[in-house]
Amino acid sequence: MDENTLSIILVEPQLGQNIGAVARAMLNFGLTDLRLVRPRDGWPNQEAVAPAAGADKVLENVKVFPSTHTAIADLNRIFATSCRSHDMVKFIYAPNVALKSLASTAQEGQKVGVLFGSERCGLHNDDLSLCEAHIKIPTNPGFSSLNIAHAVVLIAYEWFLQVTSCPTQVFRTGATHLATGEDVGNFFAHLEEELDRTGFLRHKKKRPTMVRNIRNIFQRAQLTDQEVRTLRGIIRSLVREPQPLRAQKNQNKAA
Amino acid sequence: MDENTLSIILVEPQLGQNIGAVARAMLNFGLTDLRLVRPRDGWPNQEAVAPAAGADKVLENVKVFPSTHTAIADLNRIFATSCRSHDMVKFIYAPNVALKSLASTAQEGQKVGVLFGSERCGLHNDDLSLCEAHIKIPTNPGFSSLNIAHAVVLIAYEWFLQVTSCPTQVFRTGATHLATGEDVGNFFAHLEEELDRTGFLRHKKKRPTMVRNIRNIFQRAQLTDQEVRTLRGIIRSLVREPQPLRAQKNQNKAA
Repeated sequence: MDENTLSIILVEPQLGQNIGAVARAMLNFGLTDLRLVRPRDGWPNQEAVAPAAGADKVLENVKVFPSTHTAIADLNRIFATSCRSHDMVKFIYAPNVALKSLASTAQEGQKVGVLFGSERCGLHNDDLSLCEAHIKIPTNPGFSSLNIAHAVVLIAYEWFLQVTSCPTQVFRTGATHLATGEDVGNFFAHLEEELDRTGFLRHKKKRPTMVRNIRNIFQRAQLTDQEVRTLRGIIRSLVREPQPLRAQKNQNKAA
Repeated sequence: MDENTLSIILVEPQLGQNIGAVARAMLNFGLTDLRLVRPRDGWPNQEAVAPAAGADKVLENVKVFPSTHTAIADLNRIFATSCRSHDMVKFIYAPNVALKSLASTAQEGQKVGVLFGSERCGLHNDDLSLCEAHIKIPTNPGFSSLNIAHAVVLIAYEWFLQVTSCPTQVFRTGATHLATGEDVGNFFAHLEEELDRTGFLRHKKKRPTMVRNIRNIFQRAQLTDQEVRTLRGIIRSLVREPQPLRAQKNQNKAA
């Protein structure tokens, strides 16, 4: 991730607080190369420190440039974020498509970056003409202007998805593991035995359907072995006579 | 989008400015149902107004609840964002998988929402146990704590991708259109004729390769009809004798 990185270039950013929020968002997704072109309030900027929330590695590494041209001089491919309609003939990509393409270029050892415009007016046409293509973040057409840090979050996130292999679904069972068919089968036998005894399943004709429906509830839950033990404890507890609550009595005495 | 929406529930949010940034991010992606559980500084909160950047529709619609339980009472499916490791047995989904699932439930006319914890300590285990599953936003393990508005941006964006059909690639050509094979072929003939005349293609053996390489440069650019006309004008301009610069001369006189 250190070799193959995405450079984030902010052109004429205005608020230090936004630059700090950008730094935090970048480091959240493993990015550290932040470049500023003519930041309005200069650099360094104390306003950036708190919103960066500890992303010092990014703030200390910030480079300032007098022009977009110099800021991108060492990059092999540069895309621009832009939500406005321009007259230019350009490819416009969705974020996932754009970052996938940039990530594969980076994996070949080349340097890639994305340009973001100022809070007030976005990127100028001259900046856009220095870029290979535009990235259009899809938004509500009635309220499309994204906060600059929010735009960076989305691009950095899509980059991270491309360069890391994140699981899309995990079933976390902690110290336990998924119950076996035998565990679950014994639980069903236990439950149904008690439901027969208490008369819940007394309608012979309906019984098979009722049993299937009850089993399906628990099958959907993908029980762990510990949960099966808990459920069997619940059954045992529900069917026996109430026990004297020794602990509770003692507590009451103490109070 | 008005019927099938995603509710955003913030549990014990602290800074009004973050609530405002959340409202902006929500409306950017077409969401308007923001619910607050015990906001630290009460509600309404003037600190939220500026960062909302005009998302008044969301701010005016905010509902405040005394507990997570009451905030989710009308929802059919609730997921929780969480980056911490808990002991609970839960499904953990990547954002795209989670939002795809919630979007299809919403399209069946059921109500869905996502829970976000406070800036300081995220969601409590009791809140998490009210949710069907967790959403884990993949982040840099060394710097994983997202700003709350940034987390909402990502979830709202993934929701928007699921409920709208956004093009992943567009070639914007403005008022012009892609050049035809004939346009491009005539341009190549024009260029190669001039390159033959000026001697650039004089090596007979290398000529076929050189011609192919030159053609490939322009093929990759996917030229429009207007761009072909521009390129042919460039060739004509380059091959003729320099013309007297009448306009420039007049300018110099004026200066």
